[in-house]
Amino acid sequence: MRTFHIQQPDQQLLPAITQKIDNLNKPKGSLGRLETLAAQLCLIQQTTSPTLSHPCHLLFGGDHGIEREGVSVSPREVTWQQMVNFTKGGGGVNMFCRQHGFHLRIVDIGVDHDLSAVPGILHRKVAFGTANFLHQTAMTEAQYWQAIDTGAQLADDCRAEGCNILCIGEMGIANTSPSSIWMSLFGNIPLDECIGVGAGLNDSGLRHKHDVLGEALRHFTQAHPEAANDPNAPSSARLITRYFGGFEMVGAIGAMLRAAELGMAVMVDGFIMTACMLAASRLYPDVLHYAIFGHCGDESGHRRMLNLMDARPLLQLGLRLGEGTGALCAFPIIESAVRMVNEMNNFDNAHITKYF
Amino acid sequence: MRTFHIQQPDQQLLPAITQKIDNLNKPKGSLGRLETLAAQLCLIQQTTSPTLSHPCHLLFGGDHGIEREGVSVSPREVTWQQMVNFTKGGGGVNMFCRQHGFHLRIVDIGVDHDLSAVPGILHRKVAFGTANFLHQTAMTEAQYWQAIDTGAQLADDCRAEGCNILCIGEMGIANTSPSSIWMSLFGNIPLDECIGVGAGLNDSGLRHKHDVLGEALRHFTQAHPEAANDPNAPSSARLITRYFGGFEMVGAIGAMLRAAELGMAVMVDGFIMTACMLAASRLYPDVLHYAIFGHCGDESGHRRMLNLMDARPLLQLGLRLGEGTGALCAFPIIESAVRMVNEMNNFDNAHITKYF
Repeated sequence: MRTFHIQQPDQQLLPAITQKIDNLNKPKGSLGRLETLAAQLCLIQQTTSPTLSHPCHLLFGGDHGIEREGVSVSPREVTWQQMVNFTKGGGGVNMFCRQHGFHLRIVDIGVDHDLSAVPGILHRKVAFGTANFLHQTAMTEAQYWQAIDTGAQLADDCRAEGCNILCIGEMGIANTSPSSIWMSLFGNIPLDECIGVGAGLNDSGLRHKHDVLGEALRHFTQAHPEAANDPNAPSSARLITRYFGGFEMVGAIGAMLRAAELGMAVMVDGFIMTACMLAASRLYPDVLHYAIFGHCGDESGHRRMLNLMDARPLLQLGLRLGEGTGALCAFPIIESAVRMVNEMNNFDNAHITKYF
Repeated sequence: MRTFHIQQPDQQLLPAITQKIDNLNKPKGSLGRLETLAAQLCLIQQTTSPTLSHPCHLLFGGDHGIEREGVSVSPREVTWQQMVNFTKGGGGVNMFCRQHGFHLRIVDIGVDHDLSAVPGILHRKVAFGTANFLHQTAMTEAQYWQAIDTGAQLADDCRAEGCNILCIGEMGIANTSPSSIWMSLFGNIPLDECIGVGAGLNDSGLRHKHDVLGEALRHFTQAHPEAANDPNAPSSARLITRYFGGFEMVGAIGAMLRAAELGMAVMVDGFIMTACMLAASRLYPDVLHYAIFGHCGDESGHRRMLNLMDARPLLQLGLRLGEGTGALCAFPIIESAVRMVNEMNNFDNAHITKYF
């Protein structure tokens, strides 16, 4: 069992940050979200001149026992096929990592296929996929902590290279299912309002997914009534995360928590990564101070889950590919915010009549 | 009087474009707006492998007679002061041009100040600001066509350098006023639903702006009842544009029309540039095929004006600085769309089980 020491950034610097941003050569507030984003980065880094250095992307891959129940339109072999594809540079995540200069790590933390001979993959496999949470807990305690530690260690590795902004993505067929259940439990939202079409389920597929997840949730509630009653207590949240989660999701949570502990900014992608940040925030609420939400997709309920954390994502482009692509696409907006606070003239040195 | 030959891009290529995008290694439609954006660029360039080459930004500066009525929180001297500031690299537009590799041209097309000795400004002054449209037409016929030609010539210059994507921005204190009137007339929307706070008017300032613009609109309607009755006829649209517009706005319209005629993509910024594209579309409806709307701001009515053109802006970041900054911030999204269609593997070469 590992604990993380995550603190809200010291707010003492806030007046100096606000004064700097308000005195830039523009009507007050006229750069909108760039201004709030810049202030967040200043606080995280405890400076009025933040930087973005050595951005890294962790792509965790894992398979899910629940996939056996036919809750996904895609078969589980797509997980390992895509992992191999990513090593060749032709996936969505690859393009956007190249575009924005991210160091990409492709991590097999639980894929149901032997990838040990594939170059370009980090081999951190906890198991060949999780157990089926329709019938049992998805992972053991030991597996859970191994996945947390694996993610945390990777955040350490990025930090050691000089990274101060970490993006996290996932590849795992069927992982919208645990995400929906986490959203339902942590947000106290009826399950059917948390379930979407994933990569493209039709109506009967969606009904089936709903039936399977509803049954799994009933089993859980019967077996663990105290956790189901008070899901947002840290011990309940840990059990829920372990009971339903995938290795790639728990690995992502470990990376998020360690990155926040190290004072790094964490870029959060779509539905699945938002569910992971939600779970992380139930374990350590202050992790949210380090989170930058990249994208709000069309997956049913994503906006609602973001609202549970008062999160305001930077982009709404209808992306639903996963892999971290939505967050990566938002990176230049973060860069723009940093340029603003570092490069823009202020009213004094620009010799402009101050607007008001 | 100049005419533009703007045509809808040939649609014959559309099936091939759609097939290419649908067969990329992702669930169909899962890259959302990137997919529609890529298809638009493919059509504009008549290729299935579009490029973005030598992006250029035209920043037009001009002053407005209506500013004398106190419709803006900022005094008119801010226009020339900012134009000088832009030559020194410290404005919002400068940062984002640097970030995204745009060649910036700063164009004095109608600033009420002698900038002829300032290096780094293109001197294309039509006049020292427009006339006050509360009392008379803002510009003469000759001035109107000079401004159109000036914008068109600058689009030619960009094209000659190899540019195929043109971004346009403005600097002109009080130019939300003509924009609101254009929106009201072209959209048949009550004036008070088209007026916002500009760079930061308070309540009484807003009421005053409303009174002044309402009176100007009544004068116009009395003097030109036929144009006011049928504002979207091209001859009416031309008169309305000339009667209320600023030189920087008419110059932008000339650049938009010529860029479309040349088959270039045109990036559209916030409230004022959206009003210019609206006016341009009343003159030549097919110009909209070439328009990429970058940003929807908070200026009251911007969303509604976008809806008049069925425009779906890429970003909503609460920016209201102008200068083209909202459109520039959206450029990496356009780059992502181009990367997708050119770099992403397809299902055949990636050896992935096709999702569905």
